[in-house]
Parts: sequence; C-alpha cells; structure tokens
Amino acid sequence: MTGRVMLVGAGPGAADLLTLRAVAALEQATVVLHDRLVGDDILKLVSPAADLIDVGKWPGDDHTQTQIMEVMESMAGAGHQVVRLKGGDPMVFGRGGEELAYLTERGVPVQVIPGITSAVGVPASIGLPLTFRQVASGFTVIAGQTVTPTNAACHAVADTLVILMGAGQRTRIATELVRGGRPSAEPVAFIESGTTPDERVTVATLGDVADGRVDVKPPVVWVCGRVVDTLDVTSIERVAVG
Amino acid sequence: MTGRVMLVGAGPGAADLLTLRAVAALEQATVVLHDRLVGDDILKLVSPAADLIDVGKWPGDDHTQTQIMEVMESMAGAGHQVVRLKGGDPMVFGRGGEELAYLTERGVPVQVIPGITSAVGVPASIGLPLTFRQVASGFTVIAGQTVTPTNAACHAVADTLVILMGAGQRTRIATELVRGGRPSAEPVAFIESGTTPDERVTVATLGDVADGRVDVKPPVVWVCGRVVDTLDVTSIERVAVG
Repeated sequence: MTGRVMLVGAGPGAADLLTLRAVAALEQATVVLHDRLVGDDILKLVSPAADLIDVGKWPGDDHTQTQIMEVMESMAGAGHQVVRLKGGDPMVFGRGGEELAYLTERGVPVQVIPGITSAVGVPASIGLPLTFRQVASGFTVIAGQTVTPTNAACHAVADTLVILMGAGQRTRIATELVRGGRPSAEPVAFIESGTTPDERVTVATLGDVADGRVDVKPPVVWVCGRVVDTLDVTSIERVAVG
Repeated sequence: MTGRVMLVGAGPGAADLLTLRAVAALEQATVVLHDRLVGDDILKLVSPAADLIDVGKWPGDDHTQTQIMEVMESMAGAGHQVVRLKGGDPMVFGRGGEELAYLTERGVPVQVIPGITSAVGVPASIGLPLTFRQVASGFTVIAGQTVTPTNAACHAVADTLVILMGAGQRTRIATELVRGGRPSAEPVAFIESGTTPDERVTVATLGDVADGRVDVKPPVVWVCGRVVDTLDVTSIERVAVG
C-alpha cells in the first residue's frame, strides 16, 4: 500500500467519543504520532503492531514541529500508514493546518479525519448549549493566550465565548475581557478534564475570575455567556457520568 | 430499565463520523426521533426493533417543537429509551438546549451525547483549517438568518467566520458583512452536502457572493476568512473522497 498520513481528531477525551472513521484509521495505522492529551484508553485502540511515538514528550517549540512534519513525510515515503493523532479536531488549533500544508506541498497523500473539538463537545456533554434561542445566536472560540488589551473589545461582542488553553492566564484574560466590555456579572463555566473520570465543573462570574477567586487546572474549557444560566447545576454530575 | 432521553449528535453527514457512544445509543434505543438531515446510512445503525419517527416531516414551527418535547417526555415516562437524533452536535443550534431544559425541568433523565458539528467537521474533512498561525487565532460560528445590519460589524472582527444555514440568503448576508467591514476581496468557501457523496466545494470572494455570482444549495457550510487561502484546491477532490 502507498504510504500516507491521516490527521485524526481524537475528540475531547473519552475513548467512546472517537468516530468510527477515527477508530478504523487507528486500526490501519503502522505508526501513530500522538499528543500528550491523548489518553491511554484511546491508545488501546491502536493496532498492537503499530509503533507509538509520544511527540508530546518532545520539546514544544518550532524546531520540534518541523521534526514532527519531517518524520511524517519520511515515514509516509517509506510506505507507512501514519496517523497523527490530536486531541479534539485536527484543524482547530494544534497546528494541524500547518502540517496539512507542509505534507500537501511535498506531494504526500493526506487525509483529514475530523474529531469532536473540546470547545463544543465538552460543554455539550455536561448539557451546556453554546446557542440558545433569545440568549445566544452564535459562539466564538479562541485560545486564551491570544486575548490582548487591543482585541478584548472584539471578544466582548460574542454571545457565547469559548476559551481554550486559558487556565493559567485566567485572571489576566478575565480582566481584559471585563475591560473590553463583557459584564463582570456574566456567568462563566470552567470544565476541567472534560469527558474523563477527572471531570470537574466550576460555575462563577467573570468578575470572580478577574478577582482571582477561581482555581482551575488545565486542560480546561472555559465558557462565558448567558447560556451558562441555562445549565442545570444540580444535574451536572448525573449528566457527566451518565 | 428506567425510561430516559438521549440527545445525540449525528455529526455532519457521513455515517462513519458518528462516535462510538452515539452508535451504542442507537443500538439501545427503543424510539428514535430524527431530523430531516439525518441520512439513511445513519438510520441503518438503529436497532430494527426500534420505532423511527421522522420529525423533519412535521411542520417546523413552535407548536411542532412543543409536540416533539411532549412526545419525548411521554415516551421516556412509559419506560422507553428515547434517542433524539440531530445533525451535527445537539447543543449547537437546532434547539437542543431548549429540549434539555424542558426535560430536565420535568424530571426526565437526560444524557447529551456530543457529535461533530458541521461548522467544524465539514471544513476539516476537506482540509480547511479554522485556525492557522499568523492567519486566524480563533473562529466564530453563526446562523445566517441572524446577520443584520446592526450586528454585521461584530461579525466583521472574527478572523474566521463560519455561517450555517446561510445558503438561501447568501447575497444579503454577504452584502451586510461587506458593509460591516469584511473586505469584499476576502476568500470564502462553500461546502454543500459536506462529507456525503453529493459534496461540492466552491471557492469565491465575499464580493462575488454579494454580487449574486455564487450559486449554492443547502445544506451548506460557508467559511469566510484568510484560512481559505490555505486550502489546496487541487487536492480537494482527493481529500473529500479519501
């Protein structure tokens, strides 16, 4: 068989939130390069004959990213069925677009297998809608580190704002968002380790976060907006473990 | 077994883009209420013993929505394992949040099983990233009918703007977005019937759309932004059918 690369989304965390197409790719793979956030329950779905490479242990710099792309190109060239397994969806953050462009420019056959992005699937799985009639007619997804004083006003207009990779800088981000125009009384929800046994949900206000009164650890999906008021807090645990 | 409702995301179209958890829910279901956009290949995964109810044939008004919720409540009360099967993710558009709130308020056990939203999965599957370093640090998802002269400027600030349910009003929407500040030279991609055998991709500019020069039919995922320039148009067909 001709070598190729499959950029595969592993979804938000739970192994049974992989798609059938992703599972088939893991079964066909002869090499799998995976990120740190992809758990053991998911790696168990990989064919035992395949090589597993944990690139999450490599230094997370531009040099490493180039190495990952070179390894994929070289292994596909040697005839391997290479799976690049990423948390969430491969085309949302995580540099999947760059990997696709690199490989396509070099003539390597590539297929993208979408996955459930944590930005949507983690709130959904606890029963938190991102849109709701009369409350939120759309949503915006951003990475926490990209919130700055100059763009915070832009993020203030989104009905529902979903922030990924924002745990460490939550106090700064919340402060910028309030300065940008989001109400400090706005309800927010943090979902740590969504869809896994370690899942934990915290509901607060944006002002609480700005004041440093909320403690969360990554990986976190952070949802800001009035949709959080629709969340039935009493039922969270039941829904989460259902 | 106690009756309950599972709000299940069927993903963007292809049956193998359902999750393992969604397939398990379809196998356990005794009643399935499904939308028009859920195809036959997906309905084949439902247990043959289950009743299939095509609520997409019911009139699409508020009265119908109430009826759907009442039917689910009553069937769960009678001990059924009720699956409410929705295209994409159940908590993104499509009133899944309202159904969850209705059932939870009435004490009906509900579980939400996320699915791949078309807004993300359809672009991903053709190799169109929604974020890309130096190009787009986030994305916004909206429903076409909610774009108005007063909010178009808000939608102008999103790096990548994904519009669902915008096919019919595309000329008006594109005109509003250009008036709101998005460049008329901005590249856009329309993906009709994404992930199905009828998939068709059209690349144009926002100005082309405003001028009525683009013809597309629903269901369409419409992506606006510089990420469209990263799309390898020569490889679209290969990736789409891969």
